[in-house]
Amino acid sequence: VVNTETGHDLAAQRADLAAVCRTLYGFGWMPGTSGNVSLRSGGSVVITASGRSKGTMAAGDTVVVDPEKGRPLAGETERPSAETFIHLAVYRQVPECGAVIHAHAPYSTALATLVGAEGVVGTALFSRLELAKGLGVADPSEVAVPVFPNWPDVPRIGEDVAGYLARTADAPPVLLIDRHGVTSWGRSLEEARNRMECVEELSRLALLTGAFGPDVAKESAR
Amino acid sequence: VVNTETGHDLAAQRADLAAVCRTLYGFGWMPGTSGNVSLRSGGSVVITASGRSKGTMAAGDTVVVDPEKGRPLAGETERPSAETFIHLAVYRQVPECGAVIHAHAPYSTALATLVGAEGVVGTALFSRLELAKGLGVADPSEVAVPVFPNWPDVPRIGEDVAGYLARTADAPPVLLIDRHGVTSWGRSLEEARNRMECVEELSRLALLTGAFGPDVAKESAR
Amino acid sequence: VVNTETGHDLAAQRADLAAVCRTLYGFGWMPGTSGNVSLRSGGSVVITASGRSKGTMAAGDTVVVDPEKGRPLAGETERPSAETFIHLAVYRQVPECGAVIHAHAPYSTALATLVGAEGVVGTALFSRLELAKGLGVADPSEVAVPVFPNWPDVPRIGEDVAGYLARTADAPPVLLIDRHGVTSWGRSLEEARNRMECVEELSRLALLTGAFGPDVAKESAR
Amino acid sequence: VVNTETGHDLAAQRADLAAVCRTLYGFGWMPGTSGNVSLRSGGSVVITASGRSKGTMAAGDTVVVDPEKGRPLAGETERPSAETFIHLAVYRQVPECGAVIHAHAPYSTALATLVGAEGVVGTALFSRLELAKGLGVADPSEVAVPVFPNWPDVPRIGEDVAGYLARTADAPPVLLIDRHGVTSWGRSLEEARNRMECVEELSRLALLTGAFGPDVAKESAR
Repeated sequence: VVNTETGHDLAAQRADLAAVCRTLYGFGWMPGTSGNVSLRSGGSVVITASGRSKGTMAAGDTVVVDPEKGRPLAGETERPSAETFIHLAVYRQVPECGAVIHAHAPYSTALATLVGAEGVVGTALFSRLELAKGLGVADPSEVAVPVFPNWPDVPRIGEDVAGYLARTADAPPVLLIDRHGVTSWGRSLEEARNRMECVEELSRLALLTGAFGPDVAKESAR
Repeated sequence: VVNTETGHDLAAQRADLAAVCRTLYGFGWMPGTSGNVSLRSGGSVVITASGRSKGTMAAGDTVVVDPEKGRPLAGETERPSAETFIHLAVYRQVPECGAVIHAHAPYSTALATLVGAEGVVGTALFSRLELAKGLGVADPSEVAVPVFPNWPDVPRIGEDVAGYLARTADAPPVLLIDRHGVTSWGRSLEEARNRMECVEELSRLALLTGAFGPDVAKESAR
Repeated sequence: VVNTETGHDLAAQRADLAAVCRTLYGFGWMPGTSGNVSLRSGGSVVITASGRSKGTMAAGDTVVVDPEKGRPLAGETERPSAETFIHLAVYRQVPECGAVIHAHAPYSTALATLVGAEGVVGTALFSRLELAKGLGVADPSEVAVPVFPNWPDVPRIGEDVAGYLARTADAPPVLLIDRHGVTSWGRSLEEARNRMECVEELSRLALLTGAFGPDVAKESAR
Repeated sequence: VVNTETGHDLAAQRADLAAVCRTLYGFGWMPGTSGNVSLRSGGSVVITASGRSKGTMAAGDTVVVDPEKGRPLAGETERPSAETFIHLAVYRQVPECGAVIHAHAPYSTALATLVGAEGVVGTALFSRLELAKGLGVADPSEVAVPVFPNWPDVPRIGEDVAGYLARTADAPPVLLIDRHGVTSWGRSLEEARNRMECVEELSRLALLTGAFGPDVAKESAR
């Protein structure tokens, strides 16, 4: 079904969401029913439905929501992910963003948990790591990835993200959530997935070498 | 073959058990011939046969047993897993339980081994970890997962499990066994598998961040 | 081709060797051209040829050798693995052995390297680990796995192995080689592979929990 | 299309490059759009195009370049990888080299980062590790793998590599780049891939056992 107004083929977008979920599940980054993925579709957002294993996702396990409140559009039968608010915050603040991925990738989540500070937005530093070029930032030689507190109230995380993105001109297209997970985005689903792969590998490298966080980064600024 | 009394399709259940075994073997969580999986089938329990590699399980590698003694029903040709008693303890104490998975997932087993105490039921704490929501407990912000001693006499482990479940109103649907492995359950095989994925990832996160066990949890209670 | 004397189907055995190689390569346990696998075939031994990636092994990448000197039988065109002598030492000392696997599985190799002693046969202890039951030893509660020095001269490793097996009544069906790898065996190829899976997982558990070697084992004998 | 002058089948070479990319992506060694692979094709070099996910590479995602400047030949439509200069340095200095692989394999990259020294070529030592035989060096008992500084200006890395190879008679066919990744080469693509597998596994072993670098190697020279 092509949206005649926007030219988007919604059926293909739903299938794309399901396919990337199956891939990321295969990487082990969406255990249980965790993780969620979305695409911008004209003025709306298509996002994965709540409570599904990502290993067997199909196009029907998605739902189109309005970009302000995250409510399913008329005719949609699925319930959107509880973390829709984080996705919407990114779409609102990043006009060129076309797709958002939220995952529980192990090394990113561990890094978030080690670096996360209580109640404030912390920072994980990727310092002079070549792979940071894959994030598409202006200066990949020193990338400050924000680490958000994991408020039980998900919309509050969305507000933190929106506030951070509004005040941070050169924000990287990835963010961490303390004791929770990692979110990436890009112009396309493939770009968002590429960046997810980069941030997870950068996090693994940080953990393997013990080089992460502001203090360590300063010390290692050789 | 549909059980005319219960409506269960036993052949489909046997095939489902075999399929989830192959999946979990693929994850590396059932090395050698370890691991076993069961389903409630009417008043009986279908469980994987003893001593098979889970990588090549077929529907025929299962056996229907009585839920009290774990003895094969008449007509069954396979020998049930030695750990059937642990499964039966769960089915007896958790009426809504429809499926049980026992695996040797590496991080859960390592966590059990690090946290396990001699001869008594210990505790691994998952403290404010988002993924704990995947366990379906009333309060996911602080989940106390029991760690059972690994008695050489398997029925004694079953008794410990039964006693714990009888006295613990809000027991999570996962348990660890010291120097041994991890067990999860749910209303369906898929729910049990989702929860296994969650407990293994939570255990990995605990190991990567060094945050597990009562003392550590208290210290990190920021 | 069935050996009319022994009833062995040599073509099937060659194909079985190739298949298990591809599986173990898929696990990451045979990097580069490392690893080798053999089967007893009547009075001879079929073993993988030297210098092949195990990811693309075919039945033709095997060679039948005599069990004493490891020389290819007449008509064989491939060169046997340099580590054939280790396989032959096991076949000579363990009459019921039907298959031998040698791999560079990461955790077993790391354990061997951490525990290995200079020039003498060391020991890695698996103490009260449930999965040790998968090794099929008389007393799985305390399994002493030998760690052999990695002599550059491979036949000398074979002599060490033969001597150890000759003097050790209850030797487990797995052995480690310092800075080198791990060898397992069983009555069948499947049993040897199951035991390889067990020793690798036991080694991972030992590394994750820091519990390995004589001293640690004594301390942890609670 | 067979090059009538050299006998190379360029179409097959392009397909081979794409296939090895997909394999190495499957190993997790080419996250995001990182990694690049090349083959010598007569007097030219075929290399992967810039900015593609290696998980979905096709033959068309390659480009033939001149071996001096790395410029696409006439008729080529793709842009070569930014790291082409590192490949060309190897081809120039190693006449028998037929293929080069550059990857962000996690353990090699972590080892490079731990061992790398500021602004000079460092060394990672693989000391008496059996798998080092897979690198095809004259003396595998002690392999000194160079660790190059990761200059933001890629041609400068290429110059360092060229200088090192020119002055090092027995250079191993693998090199590390600090905070960046690992490069391997061989007479064929398969040999380069086998050696990549070896150096990554050797690096994992070094990290798991804590044995790497000049000082540690000296201490552990038992």
